[in-house]
Amino acid sequence: MAKKEKKQPRPKAAAPRGFRDSFGAEVEARRAMLGKIAEVYHSYGFDPLETSAIETVEALGKFLPDVDRPNEGVFGFQDDDESWIALRYDLTAPLARVAAQYRLDLPSPYRRYAMGPVWRNEKPGPGRFREFWQCDADTVGTSTVAADAEICGMLASALENAGIGRDQFLVRVNNRKVMNGVLETANLMGEDQAAQRGITMRAIDKLDRLGEDGVRALLGAGRKDDSGAFTEGAKLAEEQADIIMGFVGAERADGAATCARLRELIGSSETGAEGVNELEEIASLLDAQGYGSDRIKIDPSVVRGLGYYTGPVYEAELTFEVIDEKGQKRQFGSVAGGGRYDDLVKRFTGQQVPATGVSIGVDRLLAALSATGRLGVADAQGPVVILALDRGRMAHYQSMCADLRNAGIRAEVFMGGGTNMGKQLKYADKRAAPLAIIEGGDEAERGVVQIKDLVLGSKLAEEIESNEEWKAQPAQREIPQGDLVATVREMLAR
Amino acid sequence: MAKKEKKQPRPKAAAPRGFRDSFGAEVEARRAMLGKIAEVYHSYGFDPLETSAIETVEALGKFLPDVDRPNEGVFGFQDDDESWIALRYDLTAPLARVAAQYRLDLPSPYRRYAMGPVWRNEKPGPGRFREFWQCDADTVGTSTVAADAEICGMLASALENAGIGRDQFLVRVNNRKVMNGVLETANLMGEDQAAQRGITMRAIDKLDRLGEDGVRALLGAGRKDDSGAFTEGAKLAEEQADIIMGFVGAERADGAATCARLRELIGSSETGAEGVNELEEIASLLDAQGYGSDRIKIDPSVVRGLGYYTGPVYEAELTFEVIDEKGQKRQFGSVAGGGRYDDLVKRFTGQQVPATGVSIGVDRLLAALSATGRLGVADAQGPVVILALDRGRMAHYQSMCADLRNAGIRAEVFMGGGTNMGKQLKYADKRAAPLAIIEGGDEAERGVVQIKDLVLGSKLAEEIESNEEWKAQPAQREIPQGDLVATVREMLAR
Repeated sequence: MAKKEKKQPRPKAAAPRGFRDSFGAEVEARRAMLGKIAEVYHSYGFDPLETSAIETVEALGKFLPDVDRPNEGVFGFQDDDESWIALRYDLTAPLARVAAQYRLDLPSPYRRYAMGPVWRNEKPGPGRFREFWQCDADTVGTSTVAADAEICGMLASALENAGIGRDQFLVRVNNRKVMNGVLETANLMGEDQAAQRGITMRAIDKLDRLGEDGVRALLGAGRKDDSGAFTEGAKLAEEQADIIMGFVGAERADGAATCARLRELIGSSETGAEGVNELEEIASLLDAQGYGSDRIKIDPSVVRGLGYYTGPVYEAELTFEVIDEKGQKRQFGSVAGGGRYDDLVKRFTGQQVPATGVSIGVDRLLAALSATGRLGVADAQGPVVILALDRGRMAHYQSMCADLRNAGIRAEVFMGGGTNMGKQLKYADKRAAPLAIIEGGDEAERGVVQIKDLVLGSKLAEEIESNEEWKAQPAQREIPQGDLVATVREMLAR
Repeated sequence: MAKKEKKQPRPKAAAPRGFRDSFGAEVEARRAMLGKIAEVYHSYGFDPLETSAIETVEALGKFLPDVDRPNEGVFGFQDDDESWIALRYDLTAPLARVAAQYRLDLPSPYRRYAMGPVWRNEKPGPGRFREFWQCDADTVGTSTVAADAEICGMLASALENAGIGRDQFLVRVNNRKVMNGVLETANLMGEDQAAQRGITMRAIDKLDRLGEDGVRALLGAGRKDDSGAFTEGAKLAEEQADIIMGFVGAERADGAATCARLRELIGSSETGAEGVNELEEIASLLDAQGYGSDRIKIDPSVVRGLGYYTGPVYEAELTFEVIDEKGQKRQFGSVAGGGRYDDLVKRFTGQQVPATGVSIGVDRLLAALSATGRLGVADAQGPVVILALDRGRMAHYQSMCADLRNAGIRAEVFMGGGTNMGKQLKYADKRAAPLAIIEGGDEAERGVVQIKDLVLGSKLAEEIESNEEWKAQPAQREIPQGDLVATVREMLAR
């Protein structure tokens, strides 16, 4: 579109590294899925919030400009007043800024959801993009665990509404305070034990991958992996490691039994007792709303995010199996996670504002819906294509097309060059058109149109050369002009 | 959310200059409006396309890096491989890149629509933001004016579907080739007359503001404005200016008469004749689809974009009156514009690919819908709020809330601190809640709940201090527990 072209080498037609484009059905599938999630969020009283893509680096917080260009991890630019601004890297940092900026005007608690792209200035890789969508819901300004329970229930309903079967997922709930109580009981909360606690938390997080033996090795002296590489352990005493492993394996038949087991493990820790009380309260609140342990359960093996969150943590896992890149069957795994965090707006105002929230992995959930054939778009069906075999009859083709559209049928007239039928049918195939409408001079004279069922006839399309040969195909019907809308409707409904 | 806080001044909680946030009803209104537009685009066989926010500066084209930081007009950054990338400044440049990159895979013609934010690194001002939404639809790869006619018709239907009344808008169509024919006839197409042509086009573009006399002055010696500032004119001869003014005022009672008048003005110019033929064909194609001149008409006074486009140009104007910032009544004006352009992908591939497309001003159209009370969101109604007056009954409140939601009613339980009824009612007001559900210990014992109509009762809410006083208000009903869902549904339906 450059009006005056300078003599320059031609630019390369490619998105930058780590960026991608989404076409037709993919865009519609994502839109439909997010719409289904938003429906549930709306019914829970959550309001949408759309912040700008760009924030001040100061407000983003994580990446203060201590070097010339603070673009480590974010896409940052210096504004004309010398201040640094950057693309948001998640939807939580903008929420923190908004919660502080509008604190006098927003209802408290403030329930909001946000859906949109975020940007990471990181090395792209397979399946790892520098722009991707997030879908978050948070309640800001209340410390009651009823808010955490609400988010867990809402998450379960959102997954179901998006198309995940009730038997295909599980929301698992744990609590950082219980973990802290367990660490206390294991004598690991000393000020000089931060390193040991760190290794312990990371070890627990590897349970899925390394199994109980692997974790226990990491809690002790350390672990040598298959390649021979050695990972230093937390060097806990046997009794300490027992307590930690007990915590990880504390799940029992139901929430009450699990909580009872946790009470044993936390001993006399007050923080731990608080955590178990919270878990019990969450379970009872969810029960009252009809979310039984078949959908949401207390599960002490949830450790992801325990180091980050301050109270309840929750994670949604899809329990059906898929074939992974190595050809192995495995559980689909996590599609959403969240928890309680307390310092959301403190950076801005000095006041502590408690909050709890969840983030759904948009791409992961889309992949899951695709794997289960439950993408929200009814089908990737293209429009009915009316061939333009006689240029002089374009106005008439448009008029037929308008009739179809007015009857609620997606339709278009072929508008490429030429009147070659084979080429136009190939176009219709590329558009995933279910039907092609054919009306050449002969048909026009006789007051009829041909309707070709492309799904049935696509295999033969490339061999067709003449209108005569064409008519012999079984997937084609000749009908009176006046029956067009009714017949198309009937054929599409099949 | 910073885990370890350094001693630093508190960051300011504000969006960067020229950026803004959208809340609740505003987000929903935009989403609903774009959804209505997408419905029509979809029915016309257009597919959505979502490109990444970031493009290579090379692909964006307009802003090649001839200085250290090519951020004039765009937000650009240097990638770690030293190449420059930038945020898109419109949706056309990414379309050009996509049309070139995927030219072997995309159907041809390729019909796509795109909706999303674009970014301009410009000085912000009142109503002038550095991030705003665009909504484009283009047909790439065909030179037939049937494609232009289709876009005009689709635009009219999209506006209607979004909520603009059939009598509230007009799509006006003109053609660059007619303009060129007129310039030819006026002896203004010489190579050394580029400056004169430029002044002439700019003068015509000011018709709305300056009137015929003002334009004629600019076509001649020049014009002094009210402040005394002098604008140099195109210095056309009287006969030349007559022809130009004739073109601008060529509109007649109907399309046929207007085209006849244009044929006179273009004399023997071949380009001009081609342009008039195209206008006639567009009018006849639109007629065939049922779009009469009450919705779409040939209008030679449309000049915006004539310098940019290469064939048909079109503009949608809203014809109802609004009160402007000076308190004056004026027509709402343009909300969408577009036309045919030919060099979309030539920069990338060397091949000319004709295209035609329209862009709807998202903020303008939203403002118009707001002015006419036709925002797509039924109302800005908040959720039903269940007060939490007895913390011990939280599970029960949640259970009532779940019953309401399961019946399709938007509802939430108050989750802020404390059990003060006045505070909770103020929260409900802030949420624009239509109803509040009240169930204290007394009501629980008697198996009843109170439902307060907040719309009716909001005036009195601040004066209420006790439950007793409260009950005397007329906007409140006491009902048996079991009637909750039915009664709420009935009250919301009123």
